[in-house]
Amino acid sequence: MHVAEVARALDLLGVFAFAVNGAFTAVEKTRVDIVGILALGIITALGGGIIRDLCIGSVPPAAFTDQYYLSIAAGGALIAFFVRRVPRLLHGSILVLDAVGLSVFAVSGAQKALAFGLHPAPAILLGAVTAVGGGTIRDVLIREIPSVLTSGLYAIPALVGATITVLTVAHDPRLAVWGAIAGAVACFLIRMLGLRYNVDAPTGIGRREPRG
Amino acid sequence: MHVAEVARALDLLGVFAFAVNGAFTAVEKTRVDIVGILALGIITALGGGIIRDLCIGSVPPAAFTDQYYLSIAAGGALIAFFVRRVPRLLHGSILVLDAVGLSVFAVSGAQKALAFGLHPAPAILLGAVTAVGGGTIRDVLIREIPSVLTSGLYAIPALVGATITVLTVAHDPRLAVWGAIAGAVACFLIRMLGLRYNVDAPTGIGRREPRG
Amino acid sequence: MHVAEVARALDLLGVFAFAVNGAFTAVEKTRVDIVGILALGIITALGGGIIRDLCIGSVPPAAFTDQYYLSIAAGGALIAFFVRRVPRLLHGSILVLDAVGLSVFAVSGAQKALAFGLHPAPAILLGAVTAVGGGTIRDVLIREIPSVLTSGLYAIPALVGATITVLTVAHDPRLAVWGAIAGAVACFLIRMLGLRYNVDAPTGIGRREPRG
Repeated sequence: MHVAEVARALDLLGVFAFAVNGAFTAVEKTRVDIVGILALGIITALGGGIIRDLCIGSVPPAAFTDQYYLSIAAGGALIAFFVRRVPRLLHGSILVLDAVGLSVFAVSGAQKALAFGLHPAPAILLGAVTAVGGGTIRDVLIREIPSVLTSGLYAIPALVGATITVLTVAHDPRLAVWGAIAGAVACFLIRMLGLRYNVDAPTGIGRREPRG
Repeated sequence: MHVAEVARALDLLGVFAFAVNGAFTAVEKTRVDIVGILALGIITALGGGIIRDLCIGSVPPAAFTDQYYLSIAAGGALIAFFVRRVPRLLHGSILVLDAVGLSVFAVSGAQKALAFGLHPAPAILLGAVTAVGGGTIRDVLIREIPSVLTSGLYAIPALVGATITVLTVAHDPRLAVWGAIAGAVACFLIRMLGLRYNVDAPTGIGRREPRG
Repeated sequence: MHVAEVARALDLLGVFAFAVNGAFTAVEKTRVDIVGILALGIITALGGGIIRDLCIGSVPPAAFTDQYYLSIAAGGALIAFFVRRVPRLLHGSILVLDAVGLSVFAVSGAQKALAFGLHPAPAILLGAVTAVGGGTIRDVLIREIPSVLTSGLYAIPALVGATITVLTVAHDPRLAVWGAIAGAVACFLIRMLGLRYNVDAPTGIGRREPRG
């Protein structure tokens, strides 16, 4: 399977995961109408990738040229609109879904940055930006201090996943797919372990309650 | 009259309307000095178009290459600086002016996105982003929850106007001007009816008082 | 010495100054972990230049292609992480450092915009955006009203410095280096005089205490 196809499939999975999660967070943290829910879901899902694409010169961003991105993001956000409240039983699933989005975005973001000729360090950074950028814009819009600034085990797994991806490609480009898988799995596991054992940097003033 | 000329004339009208409105909002909602008033007026007026231009690859954005944009935006903001308080009698005019800006930006934004080869759905979205983007950045800077997220009849008329514009062009490119007029009029009427009859999605926690 | 080299050397000095200052501001104003400190330091240092580069079409931005930018920004931010609290004696030095960053960014930002073919007025504006953009993004992320909107003598010296730079080049391109020096010195002096004599536009609602 071609690397570009893997990256796209992963990206679309991440888009769905982040749209659902972003829209639910919006509903939970502030009172928004359907436009707000759709907008915040779509921004959470596509914001990080748009920043990455603008920075690497992939314009118009994939979010606007690949029709699947926008449709899947809107569909994911609509789920939150119709369900409104996450059932208690699904709280865990939402966090898992978010960890999936984080992992695939970190990896696919780093891969795309490399493909556009960026050096390893900026490619790793842009992988992490792809992963946390959308959620950060959402948090700014609903006036929360972005959780990425105050919760250590959110950005760090993204950076680890992007680093594994980039170093594998630097070592041998033919291993790109394996590097992506290893990077995504590492990111996912670190994030889940962080949630499970509550490994967290000190929380900020602006966070009234832990994210989970 | 050439479509590009219509788009530019509409855009400049919108720039003026949004600069005045943005600067007055800034004065009313927070204590800012002349730099703040100018900056917030200019950002409200040009922010949406700059986001659109970056996303479609029209770089440098029109706001920086067409000298009229910056001058008109600065001029509009200066009005708010010298007047400071909107006289009660003019409250309505400010809202009408804002609706004019919303309408022309939605239409001209969608047209420009189409002209740069974007598909219909992203072109409609970017039309709406052109219309609401500047005000959203202003609201973030002065720490208000962006009204577009909590006030349903602000983004919706922009989306309707952009949709009419895009569908008309898709049907027959020679009707572009008529599509633009129809789109702008529809957006304007929906926005004014929404204001008149107070058709509003539930207001958010962050909004202390209705915008009008 | 070639203008481009001067611009780069100045830029790197500014990057260091802003990274240190941005990270200290983050530590002081909110509770952030190491990721937050690094992110806010890097954003303060590189944010303005990235906005400028995206707007003039210099993509990928220098922050991602010139490896020194990212390393120096991360290094500057790490200082704040290890020191945590600015010793009282160094409060003044931090403000001086910030004024240095402001001056060199205003000048190098305006020069780069000119080099990419922008007209004088937008080049001056982008010079100022380069100077105040990173700090503004940082303030938005930590939920402060950006000080540039409420503190008159922050944006004004940047605008003066950029204007001197641009007008000198317009007068005679061979004087570019002298224009840059004159612009940076003027910006620095106005900023320091403003701090010394507390020349300040009225402070905004959101600022709990003066920046110094």
